[in-house]
Amino acid sequence: MRAVVLHAPGDVRVDEVEDPEIIEPTDAVIRVTAACICGSDLWPYRGIENVDGPTPMGHEYVGVVERVGDAVREVGVGDLVVGSFVASDNTCEICEAGFQSRCVHQVMMGSIGTQSEFARIPLADGTLVKVPGEPTPEQQRGLLAASDVLGTGWFAAVAAEAGPGKTVAVVGDGAVGLLAILAARHLGSERVIAMSRHADRQRLARRFGATDIVEQRGEAGVARIKELTGGYGAHSTVEAVGTQESMTQAIGATRPGGHVGYVGVSHGVELDGLDLFFATVNLLGGPAPVRRFLPDLIDLVMTGRIDPGIVFDLTLPLDRAAEGYQAMDERRAIKVLLTL
Amino acid sequence: MRAVVLHAPGDVRVDEVEDPEIIEPTDAVIRVTAACICGSDLWPYRGIENVDGPTPMGHEYVGVVERVGDAVREVGVGDLVVGSFVASDNTCEICEAGFQSRCVHQVMMGSIGTQSEFARIPLADGTLVKVPGEPTPEQQRGLLAASDVLGTGWFAAVAAEAGPGKTVAVVGDGAVGLLAILAARHLGSERVIAMSRHADRQRLARRFGATDIVEQRGEAGVARIKELTGGYGAHSTVEAVGTQESMTQAIGATRPGGHVGYVGVSHGVELDGLDLFFATVNLLGGPAPVRRFLPDLIDLVMTGRIDPGIVFDLTLPLDRAAEGYQAMDERRAIKVLLTL
Repeated sequence: MRAVVLHAPGDVRVDEVEDPEIIEPTDAVIRVTAACICGSDLWPYRGIENVDGPTPMGHEYVGVVERVGDAVREVGVGDLVVGSFVASDNTCEICEAGFQSRCVHQVMMGSIGTQSEFARIPLADGTLVKVPGEPTPEQQRGLLAASDVLGTGWFAAVAAEAGPGKTVAVVGDGAVGLLAILAARHLGSERVIAMSRHADRQRLARRFGATDIVEQRGEAGVARIKELTGGYGAHSTVEAVGTQESMTQAIGATRPGGHVGYVGVSHGVELDGLDLFFATVNLLGGPAPVRRFLPDLIDLVMTGRIDPGIVFDLTLPLDRAAEGYQAMDERRAIKVLLTL
Repeated sequence: MRAVVLHAPGDVRVDEVEDPEIIEPTDAVIRVTAACICGSDLWPYRGIENVDGPTPMGHEYVGVVERVGDAVREVGVGDLVVGSFVASDNTCEICEAGFQSRCVHQVMMGSIGTQSEFARIPLADGTLVKVPGEPTPEQQRGLLAASDVLGTGWFAAVAAEAGPGKTVAVVGDGAVGLLAILAARHLGSERVIAMSRHADRQRLARRFGATDIVEQRGEAGVARIKELTGGYGAHSTVEAVGTQESMTQAIGATRPGGHVGYVGVSHGVELDGLDLFFATVNLLGGPAPVRRFLPDLIDLVMTGRIDPGIVFDLTLPLDRAAEGYQAMDERRAIKVLLTL
């Protein structure tokens, strides 16, 4: 089959590789019907994360079940399915508490790769959620977003305790940050402040429900958030970048007793214990337990109540994945969908 | 009046100083009836925190109102009162959300000193809580504990979301950690694991309701907590020390999705962002908003439902404060009460 493979920083190719097989009886193999490029795929692409030899890429997917292992009960051949970027058994105590991304049997889908014609999905019963009915092309895009960026933005908003009466600040105007805006509004927050200095992303932020835009960053950005919130800071802040600057900005923008939901994969972040102590904010983050939210998100997409798929602003066939990486790297695209 | 003054590391004296005056119309002056030495007083005593010239000591107190400023309405001369170690207006949005320790008008009582015959209490209406009735000597000790160590342990247990169905681990066997055990049990946790290697503190931990004792520290301590919790880790962990080792131990002992309540004042702690990301735990800590809990804690003490005062294992007259510091520094005493 064809699959996107990263050979070295900046060198991404579509190679012919072995078709995936059922390895464990709990596996399924899906025919991928749509995949996409994630902001986190850019870390190794940019050489910020090490690349040790050819690496399969991608961890977001919508697909049709092609084969299942003997122990799979909940999904069958021909089902249209969406899964999270982390495979999980969905039965351990961690999963039952809603933290499927840290399941005791977790498998990171990024280690398998889903920017490919087919993909092996471990723990299929726990990981995959069936899509009812036949999605429109818009809904198909929305379902693909649910697999990671929507689910991750949603978790960030929930972790930040967005809701009625809460002013939410969002640090990061990538796809996750933008969809956290949609989530915060859906969860009932009347005021959502997007921190963005790019006109195209500001427009999308407004479409997703942002009520205010703050262009300043760092200390000036924190000062502006405080100015907009009676001097107190936001009740809830989403961090969706993963750098020292963005974490510092997110914590600084949050009032004491407020909540920071952080989902940007940390790169070189160090938090000073005493600063954190006196910030006195709730911190919750990590790889988002997308599986927790998937059934609801699929329902919201399939009933047309949310349209997260508009976050994809460039669509390319799988064979042109390299162009997609380049466009995202150069910030010419927010999120690239790969068709198969 | 007489007051405890730190002149240099290890050099604590009872000096004759000026009596406090009403400075702001919102101030009260109390006659301190009991004060005590805090674990955090040991940081400057040990020279780990800088001492710039003679420094008044202490921030915990029970007392009788002696004088009030013109704007004080809620407390009057002759009232027996307890207050938190942070003076707060109790009316700003931060206070109203229950984070009085980070009130926009906060005054740290440690900057004033309460190991003294009298003390000025800023923002008296917001800070002081009246004690109903006449406390017994045991209750007086309990009320004094409420001023900081009990209130701080309580906050840590609440921040860690201790409660029914939760296994709670407590890192730190000082007065705060010990009283967090009491709090966790009172909040409904069936299982509370005290991490302690001192027989006297283990005994007190058991008295406060600890069900298990873990003597190991560091990675071995974390491994033991996992072993005791089906491999998952504690649902809720209290950190009551403030060192790199204790924070690492607390985070490591907590299952993904669990809660860490940290109240040890951080000294040299650095948290690695990526480790924290993959720990995926809720973190909440800081100076405890004791004022939030004071009315309930006073009620629990005065109705005899809790007896936190047994944490004081050495009682000395104010004039012998230096002996008290030495006993705590050498860990011969858990918590020293100073009588006046």
